[in-house]
Amino acid sequence: MRLLIALGGNAIKQAHERGTAEEQFRNCMVTTRLVAEIVRRMKPEDRLVITHGNGPQAGNLLVQQEMGKEKVPPQSMDVVGAMTQGQIGYMLQQTLTNYMKDMGISVPVCEVVNQVLVSKDDPEFFGEVASKPVGNFFTEEEAEELKREHPEYIVKKVKPVGERAWRRTVPSPAPIANVESEAIRRMVDAGIIVIASGGGGIPVILDEHGHYQGVEAVIDKDLAGEKLAEVVEANVFLVLTDVEKVNLDYGQPAERPIDRMTLAEARRYLEEGHFLPGSMGPKVEACIRFLEWGGEKAIITSLENIERALAGETGTWIVP
Amino acid sequence: MRLLIALGGNAIKQAHERGTAEEQFRNCMVTTRLVAEIVRRMKPEDRLVITHGNGPQAGNLLVQQEMGKEKVPPQSMDVVGAMTQGQIGYMLQQTLTNYMKDMGISVPVCEVVNQVLVSKDDPEFFGEVASKPVGNFFTEEEAEELKREHPEYIVKKVKPVGERAWRRTVPSPAPIANVESEAIRRMVDAGIIVIASGGGGIPVILDEHGHYQGVEAVIDKDLAGEKLAEVVEANVFLVLTDVEKVNLDYGQPAERPIDRMTLAEARRYLEEGHFLPGSMGPKVEACIRFLEWGGEKAIITSLENIERALAGETGTWIVP
Repeated sequence: MRLLIALGGNAIKQAHERGTAEEQFRNCMVTTRLVAEIVRRMKPEDRLVITHGNGPQAGNLLVQQEMGKEKVPPQSMDVVGAMTQGQIGYMLQQTLTNYMKDMGISVPVCEVVNQVLVSKDDPEFFGEVASKPVGNFFTEEEAEELKREHPEYIVKKVKPVGERAWRRTVPSPAPIANVESEAIRRMVDAGIIVIASGGGGIPVILDEHGHYQGVEAVIDKDLAGEKLAEVVEANVFLVLTDVEKVNLDYGQPAERPIDRMTLAEARRYLEEGHFLPGSMGPKVEACIRFLEWGGEKAIITSLENIERALAGETGTWIVP
Repeated sequence: MRLLIALGGNAIKQAHERGTAEEQFRNCMVTTRLVAEIVRRMKPEDRLVITHGNGPQAGNLLVQQEMGKEKVPPQSMDVVGAMTQGQIGYMLQQTLTNYMKDMGISVPVCEVVNQVLVSKDDPEFFGEVASKPVGNFFTEEEAEELKREHPEYIVKKVKPVGERAWRRTVPSPAPIANVESEAIRRMVDAGIIVIASGGGGIPVILDEHGHYQGVEAVIDKDLAGEKLAEVVEANVFLVLTDVEKVNLDYGQPAERPIDRMTLAEARRYLEEGHFLPGSMGPKVEACIRFLEWGGEKAIITSLENIERALAGETGTWIVP
């Protein structure tokens, strides 16, 4: 088995938490204890690669940068992405290493700083398309103030109701390739548990000289994770979220869980609008791409069900 | 040749700069253009490993955290260290990759998030010993205010004269081992240019359960770099600083550069107090340890002299 696990947002910070180091370490421990159980059952030839989101951490850092801007120049979104890779990578690899030590397992694990290539012609970069909300929610008045202060920002109403319904949005371009793919491939071949493409990867374009250059954007972590799965030739792609199974007619009275769907069914359900854009939508899409590329099976489930889902007992399985 | 380069502080941010992303990328480009020239001359069996400081970046982030603390909980020093590894690693690997692309070289390069073990019994953790200044300089009044606000902080007068002579200091414990040594070793063996132990590594201790745990400290990056040199079995340890050669009687009328010294001479000069503690002192000490461990040669020079120094034309060479 070559397994790629895409951790969900709550793997590191719960929505109701402020995001102290203690809280984040505690959440990471819940996550990596379960991951360590998977490592314990791995055969010597098995491989594990992990990716993760960074939404809450990047959001917090953007707030700190904004509040500190009189004294310290804020860094661009690509650099913020890189900083959260360091932050989250550290917490995951420390806690995972500790659990493996308890089990007497000594598989090396580490996160690499990782860029992901996008196209500078991606439609997300033009006009007001930018579809990825980042950072805090604002009132209409605060949103106006934010736009006055940062004319380059796109600020949108992202909730139909509620006073705090506005958020800054940034482009969410499609991932094209993992820039550090060769390093990651060699690391996985060498038996290292690699954590990569954190937060969807640091978004970079190729400039007119053929040089990589960071851009103000956020790549979807599941779609970028799928590219990573191709790089490491994963056969199983495990996408973690906050529900045990994907639902049809999500949010409707007829809502019902899916145990198993074929690639063709997944495509049809996605087209029919069963899955929320920006939420379950890209997860199912990432699974579709993985199977189209040649993956054996994609599974969507929640963290606490990892082991049972891998054993075929729960989760939504998507197969060719 | 298996070469370990320890980049100096000015490799990423010059002292007079505020530290915008643009400035830091520009500095990284100056650095990595010279590093790429070394890569160009490497034979297939040669290996290159890079480490770097993080003082200015960690200082800036600490200021942002302090100014944003009403809204976002500040992260601990170990997490700050991890975040700057991501930040600096990104800038170095992007710019180095770009120069190598120009040269038609495709050696994979990436920074790993990297912990370094220290002892919880290190004398630096006790009393007011904490010897490493971090962040801004303060006036006496501001220093008093800072201590009132953070009773756990150690704030010291670090300059004999001047109004802004006070700084927060944190423990600077001795590095014992590189926690990700096995991963790094395998990566180097696999031909990857590894950037590791950034900022001296994320400082961790072993707690009563034998678990790694972050501590509020900063490890000297040259001493930690020396441990990394042992891990990757470097034969050449190149320590970059802002002077072409190490000087005897530094700051005295009799000041004179050293072209070459033996291990025994280096030890004697260090004991005699020729080198500034917290500055050239730990660099020479790191070189001494490298040779004691079995390294072939250690070189201290400035960035722009890398190539000439490696060719034996300048820098201070330290040999067994």
